[in-house]
Amino acid sequence: MYDLIIIGGGPAGLTAGVYAVRSGLDTLVLERSEIGGQIALADIVENYPGLPSISGVELMEKYRSHAQGVGVKTKITDVLSIRSEGAKKIVSTDSGELESRAIIIATGANPKHLNVPGEREYVSKGVSYCALCDGPFFRNKTVAVIGGGNSAITDALLLSRIARKVYIVHRRDRLRATKILQDRAFTTSNIEFIFNSCVTEIVGSRGEIRRVEKIILKNLKSEEISELAADGVFIYVGIHPNTEIVNVEKDQEGFIKTSPSLETSEKGIYAAGDCRDTNIWQLVAAVRDGALAAIAANEYLESLNEQIK
Amino acid sequence: MYDLIIIGGGPAGLTAGVYAVRSGLDTLVLERSEIGGQIALADIVENYPGLPSISGVELMEKYRSHAQGVGVKTKITDVLSIRSEGAKKIVSTDSGELESRAIIIATGANPKHLNVPGEREYVSKGVSYCALCDGPFFRNKTVAVIGGGNSAITDALLLSRIARKVYIVHRRDRLRATKILQDRAFTTSNIEFIFNSCVTEIVGSRGEIRRVEKIILKNLKSEEISELAADGVFIYVGIHPNTEIVNVEKDQEGFIKTSPSLETSEKGIYAAGDCRDTNIWQLVAAVRDGALAAIAANEYLESLNEQIK
Repeated sequence: MYDLIIIGGGPAGLTAGVYAVRSGLDTLVLERSEIGGQIALADIVENYPGLPSISGVELMEKYRSHAQGVGVKTKITDVLSIRSEGAKKIVSTDSGELESRAIIIATGANPKHLNVPGEREYVSKGVSYCALCDGPFFRNKTVAVIGGGNSAITDALLLSRIARKVYIVHRRDRLRATKILQDRAFTTSNIEFIFNSCVTEIVGSRGEIRRVEKIILKNLKSEEISELAADGVFIYVGIHPNTEIVNVEKDQEGFIKTSPSLETSEKGIYAAGDCRDTNIWQLVAAVRDGALAAIAANEYLESLNEQIK
Repeated sequence: MYDLIIIGGGPAGLTAGVYAVRSGLDTLVLERSEIGGQIALADIVENYPGLPSISGVELMEKYRSHAQGVGVKTKITDVLSIRSEGAKKIVSTDSGELESRAIIIATGANPKHLNVPGEREYVSKGVSYCALCDGPFFRNKTVAVIGGGNSAITDALLLSRIARKVYIVHRRDRLRATKILQDRAFTTSNIEFIFNSCVTEIVGSRGEIRRVEKIILKNLKSEEISELAADGVFIYVGIHPNTEIVNVEKDQEGFIKTSPSLETSEKGIYAAGDCRDTNIWQLVAAVRDGALAAIAANEYLESLNEQIK
């Protein structure tokens, strides 16, 4: 019986582990694979304070060695489901059942993909899902933003102050974003709209240094095919939280609902990072959530009247 | 006229600066002195993910060079007050007035001191205000916790799993902490209470390696003086937020009230880190707050219908 099982070995989960072990809890982090969270896919991370420029893989290695160094146990296994038996939590995995007194869900989220040729190939080589993270790499360049919702338009406006030219490519003939964002985008001189269009392919250079060079567009009304030269493609077609394994209250899109102390609808089960109803999908938010959830879980364990054996 | 002025050059303020500049905002951070935040006082920081063990001063240097490296401007000056003129914000400093379109308050907070001989001298040499931060340095040692509120008892319980022995020294004959915490503390075998007593002095070794060795106690009923051997003294007699300069809504203790996106009661003014109504006074929370406030300030600036000149 562990004090705390943390599901997910990304930045939120490993930070929760550091805080929990430092608070004296016997803690196990379960990871699905060696790769720790979305951040491991980032080519370069430039917005984690204190480490001005570091690869995603290198940063995850730092998180992992920090966690293991303080005594966080980790295990690679697939979690199938979670259930409670009284105050005891049972985590069912593909290598058997594990028991814990509290649980933190830190399973993350993935941006939805366009699923077009070239997209996966050029991730971090021109394809991005986060202007806050990658925008500054496109100073005075040309970028295309794919989508028409608030995230797409907010990030297009941000990119308009960094890039030379921003195209917004949207399937429909109008945007979904709130009016004030639309007004601002329509009056920004270096933003141009391409409506009624979708991306059918992302094309880039081959060989040693691979970079996005253009995207292929299809007009959904005329069915006309065209090319658009672009150094970067920022894709905003939704985010998918990895929350299927847990049966707690979620919002419409599947993000886990949390209290201010990050407790879910079930006592003793907490959620941290991108998988919860957060307002920023950022590394700094994930590590803060991990710490807060561990502190709250520790307080919950203190308040249990009897130790569960 | 700046896009954004950030008041306070600690972890929250400098992270806000990094995010704001990366979003294309012309950003100035005002610092009162060279020393950046409470964290610069920490001897060793072991709970900032990715940097397993670093001195507070060194960590602040990393934050500062990261911020300055991306183009955050900093200025050392004392802020006297902040006022709005329409959508324009005016920051009055001891070196004149500065204008900005948005403001982030990141002025931090200080733990209240006992103000007894030895206290300042032995900070980070046995005197601490945060068990989450410093507890693990006292494995199998003897510590005294000063205070009787929720923070004191929560941290005493945490310390009881790390230290060999924990004394709780409290001025009154009963605790202020919630009952469940009290019950847990009273039934923890290595916690001992010393009621009706205050600390009159903290005494330690002198010379090369200075460490706390004992505290001098005074019984407030009998006026008897006694000594208590202790390797660490954890002080919980309140936290004082540095929020006098700003006239926005605050809670009873002076912490700035914030919305989920960290806006204060005044449009365009945000608060981040220890100075706001946070639930954890931790480095990871400060950096997350800084990022969130900068993102929210950027969205606010986007939504201003007219540019303020």
